[in-house]
Amino acid sequence: MTVHEALEAPLLRFEEALSELVQSEVLFIRLIHQDLVTAGGKRIRPRLVFLASRALGGAPFELELALAVELLHSATLLHDDLIDDAQMRRGKEAAFRRYGNAVSVLSGDFLLSRLLYVIAQTGRMELVERFAEVAKTLSEGEVLQFQVAALEDYSLENYERIITAKTAALMALCTEGPALLRGEGEEVREALRRFGLLYGQAFQMRDDYLDLMGTPEALGKPVGGDVREGKATLITLLLMERFPEAREILKRKGREEGDLERLRAWAWESGVAAEVEGQIRARAEEAARALTPLPDSPYKEALKALALKEAKRLS
Amino acid sequence: MTVHEALEAPLLRFEEALSELVQSEVLFIRLIHQDLVTAGGKRIRPRLVFLASRALGGAPFELELALAVELLHSATLLHDDLIDDAQMRRGKEAAFRRYGNAVSVLSGDFLLSRLLYVIAQTGRMELVERFAEVAKTLSEGEVLQFQVAALEDYSLENYERIITAKTAALMALCTEGPALLRGEGEEVREALRRFGLLYGQAFQMRDDYLDLMGTPEALGKPVGGDVREGKATLITLLLMERFPEAREILKRKGREEGDLERLRAWAWESGVAAEVEGQIRARAEEAARALTPLPDSPYKEALKALALKEAKRLS
Repeated sequence: MTVHEALEAPLLRFEEALSELVQSEVLFIRLIHQDLVTAGGKRIRPRLVFLASRALGGAPFELELALAVELLHSATLLHDDLIDDAQMRRGKEAAFRRYGNAVSVLSGDFLLSRLLYVIAQTGRMELVERFAEVAKTLSEGEVLQFQVAALEDYSLENYERIITAKTAALMALCTEGPALLRGEGEEVREALRRFGLLYGQAFQMRDDYLDLMGTPEALGKPVGGDVREGKATLITLLLMERFPEAREILKRKGREEGDLERLRAWAWESGVAAEVEGQIRARAEEAARALTPLPDSPYKEALKALALKEAKRLS
Repeated sequence: MTVHEALEAPLLRFEEALSELVQSEVLFIRLIHQDLVTAGGKRIRPRLVFLASRALGGAPFELELALAVELLHSATLLHDDLIDDAQMRRGKEAAFRRYGNAVSVLSGDFLLSRLLYVIAQTGRMELVERFAEVAKTLSEGEVLQFQVAALEDYSLENYERIITAKTAALMALCTEGPALLRGEGEEVREALRRFGLLYGQAFQMRDDYLDLMGTPEALGKPVGGDVREGKATLITLLLMERFPEAREILKRKGREEGDLERLRAWAWESGVAAEVEGQIRARAEEAARALTPLPDSPYKEALKALALKEAKRLS
């Protein structure tokens, strides 16, 4: 049985349990779920949980953990629809455009309440504490991103803080969580936490890279969304160092004709695109190396492969 | 020492602990706190916790419980600023008008993460479970309110569901929580839960009554906010039964000249205002009676007095 086949059963149980968990008597909450939760995403975070769990020989409450991380992620997407002003999310019209910001935010809160429920089911207060930390970090990262854009406080340091807080911290909980639930020692916990953190950073760096350099067809949304929100990412930060006008383009949120095309052309010609790809690859390889303390298994290899895929992901 | 004096010390500790709990390195989160959290409200929910705790002879973790209920309430206000389109909240400009909806929603999420942290400190998983239930009920109540307005699905039954879910359920946790933390038996828990539920309903009924029938000076905001959002409350529901045009006014969200004045005049003249006041008084008295199983004490009397005040509160 391949790793892919081995994950089929837990992912199926995950989908069933998720559908059940987000049932509500309130019609407008059900509508949001069809939209966001049950329509499914790539389920990257639950996959991380199941892979990490199996790499350790199986962890108690892995399903609850998988549900909890996906609920936190989905709630963030719902609260993010306003923030990003994203017209497309998972290739569909964002929920709030149909039902209004109100229902979007409140349905996110509903998902958070289900997260609380599902982690209580594990009876493990340490898990509640870790979710409290990650949720704090995540919200701070999102606000920081907004603040940096508003104050034009662009820096590589802020970029690292943002991707770590808003993406990597939760990924780290996905992979460390099974070790915590098994009561593993610090070496294994640290290895899985570091893997999740580095993988999460590489993942967000890749997303940010594709946001400017990808194709609308592969992304399922228009390119340049970050620029239009005044959000500096690794590629625009490096461009600013070489092309002073890049800062002006970001400040005016790419509003002038040809702004995005100019940024893309500079990135290809100056080698900045290749430099960013190199940094993503380096981060992904560091993630893979972090798993060394784990016993060898097909699941460990699958986690490594997942990270290394970030070096070449196109969508 | 009066009850009022006895609450001074715990409320002071509460303010200090709250300020500490919501510290953040992120500037924009700190701004929201000055606005909403540390500027203080009436702290009705923490007061309920301290009174209920003392009526039982003191409960462990009463401070943590008081912090948790206020954090949930404050997060709801932050997520509600968008929803209500309220221009004024606690007499100040609503946070989101200054910093944008994004920061408002995300700072609410930050508060929810601190709620998770503080309930984890109690080490009591049953409390986590109760917060999960109440947070679910609360978000469902808020969405239901939005849904009822959008679908013009006005009914007394929906009104009861909404005030119970969005206000009374949390108040019930405020008063039941200390009994839970002390490990009290079902009779005491039920008495305090019922008190909180009935008091919360009376409280919301009073708020809704004042929203139309109060004065802008006492309220610190313009009257008629609910009508302008198409939200039916007890008074408009009863008016609709007697004056068919009241339904039209609600549907058009009081947009025509003199709409609000018409509703108010009908309410005074037809006796509907007095009827609503009578229903609030009856609910408050039922709340007071629910406390019968508790041992007599000045704190029990203070809880009763708090409820009975709803019969005549003007702001």
